[in-house]
Amino acid sequence: MSTVTQRKSEEIGRKLSALYAPIASELAEAEGIFAAELESQFPFVQQLVDHSADFRGKRLRPALVLLTARASGQIKPDHAVLAAVVEMIHTATLVHDDILDESLVRRHVATVNAEWGNEAAVLMGDYLFTHAFHLAASLETTLACRWIGHATNLVCEGEMQQVGNRGNFDLDEEAYFAIIQGKTAELTAVCCRLGAHYAGAPEATVRALDDYGRNLGSAFQIADDVLDLWGEERATGKSLGTDLEKQKLTLPLIRLLNTSSPKDAQSIRRLLADATPQDRVKVRELLDHSEAPQYAWAQAERYASMAASALDVLPDSPCKAVLRTLTQYVVRRSH
Amino acid sequence: MSTVTQRKSEEIGRKLSALYAPIASELAEAEGIFAAELESQFPFVQQLVDHSADFRGKRLRPALVLLTARASGQIKPDHAVLAAVVEMIHTATLVHDDILDESLVRRHVATVNAEWGNEAAVLMGDYLFTHAFHLAASLETTLACRWIGHATNLVCEGEMQQVGNRGNFDLDEEAYFAIIQGKTAELTAVCCRLGAHYAGAPEATVRALDDYGRNLGSAFQIADDVLDLWGEERATGKSLGTDLEKQKLTLPLIRLLNTSSPKDAQSIRRLLADATPQDRVKVRELLDHSEAPQYAWAQAERYASMAASALDVLPDSPCKAVLRTLTQYVVRRSH
Repeated sequence: MSTVTQRKSEEIGRKLSALYAPIASELAEAEGIFAAELESQFPFVQQLVDHSADFRGKRLRPALVLLTARASGQIKPDHAVLAAVVEMIHTATLVHDDILDESLVRRHVATVNAEWGNEAAVLMGDYLFTHAFHLAASLETTLACRWIGHATNLVCEGEMQQVGNRGNFDLDEEAYFAIIQGKTAELTAVCCRLGAHYAGAPEATVRALDDYGRNLGSAFQIADDVLDLWGEERATGKSLGTDLEKQKLTLPLIRLLNTSSPKDAQSIRRLLADATPQDRVKVRELLDHSEAPQYAWAQAERYASMAASALDVLPDSPCKAVLRTLTQYVVRRSH
Repeated sequence: MSTVTQRKSEEIGRKLSALYAPIASELAEAEGIFAAELESQFPFVQQLVDHSADFRGKRLRPALVLLTARASGQIKPDHAVLAAVVEMIHTATLVHDDILDESLVRRHVATVNAEWGNEAAVLMGDYLFTHAFHLAASLETTLACRWIGHATNLVCEGEMQQVGNRGNFDLDEEAYFAIIQGKTAELTAVCCRLGAHYAGAPEATVRALDDYGRNLGSAFQIADDVLDLWGEERATGKSLGTDLEKQKLTLPLIRLLNTSSPKDAQSIRRLLADATPQDRVKVRELLDHSEAPQYAWAQAERYASMAASALDVLPDSPCKAVLRTLTQYVVRRSH
């Protein structure tokens, strides 16, 4: 890791740790549950478990469970379990995503597939999924398993939709938003719904916080897609430009195609289809000279602001303030 | 599909359909639940779902749930749900196994990875896993989620152990049996435990049927491993010889190494390590001239006979007779 990268990483870490201060002890408890659930007597398995734990950078999803709980009612013992479960599901999707993207780096460490091959990565993701459901089933009722199962169903469907649309340069905004709803927003929504429900919040609050999480997730994903096109590997800790390489159409490109003349759009589609490194540079230049990036950021801001509005249902509190700050954080982390 | 293959396939199908006659309507109900749970509005997803359904050949696991239920008590509505869940878990592991093995054919149709690439196969397996847990959570209590989650944890751990031991030519029998316990026997055991428990069977019967399923699964896996070395692709409907190619040590080879002189064992290890097609032919010849295949079959028979003995706890019935026949079927299907 370079010194610049390390500094940037530590800075984000410090910022988030400060934000999570009101739930610090519960977050630590969730991490203990996470580690205990995944423990294996087999050294090879434990090695993969330890390695995957390094991916848990932002801890956004467990933090959402705990912050929404405290902001809308009381944190109960079940919340730390739920926080560990959603982090496990999220980590499973990361490990499998890295196979899909053929990524070599994640959070500045080697991906499982890069280090131990695709086979180990497939199984490690499965191990995380099944342990997540096993842990969720340790709660008294089937409710968490049902909600999390439903959300994860939609996450997988969203990801499959995305793979099915590789190389489809006619993908429109509606289809794009449907994909990010599934692959990202469902999980952040269920985190907040679980947090509020298990805290004993009234049904209207539970619904509002579901809404908060859904919009926050969409804002986050749009920002992530923009950063994939413009960010730098060392700043985000991920392999970059993978969307272009994988012929995955995201919002800035959809906008660029929509606002170009038919002739220009045709030549952009050709560049996307060929997708040599030079073609990718050209596409990025075209994007830079268009209003597409501004448009995409504005969409991310729009979702972030809808998320912030959903918080109006809550009384003022330190945790509500953190939830509001997160709506700015997910969009502004790098631009 | 060749005519010979088709005939063989149809013959196995007919034989099993006849065996499953006492639970035919419940098995059909489970298949309806399976299809309904996986249904997707997205054509690409539905296409993968339909394709994966073709892998469900023997329907051994759902049949075990239903047969043990009827043999030890009463089939209840929950049983068809449980049967669909275990088949979904099993199908998920098949789809992911085919990525691990780089297999091109399964049950005489193209694997998901061969047809749509590894990405789609990873996601399709995940889709099956999460839907399985979502469906299990539709039951009244968390019991099925807990039992199935625990079994699936061990399945993944067993598979990871196997991957971690690729190219380890010192793997001993104990480690081999621990791996197949996890990767195969846990799931067949939980099928039988669930069948009996949800049928209202007494605890001793539940335990005995768990034992039955566990031994049946071990017998099945040993036979499968032997068939991988000697069977023919067109007979089993799978890509073959993958274990040798993948430097996966199974029982016949472990036995061969154990019973060879240190010098011969050393040269066998060299052949295994190089693993060119010619080396593989040589290894198979050495196996053919040893007692290793007989030894492996005898081990499979030993587990099958322990499975049969576990059935003593049950009163005589048509379903008990089928369970007993299955102990012979899993070993004798091809030798």
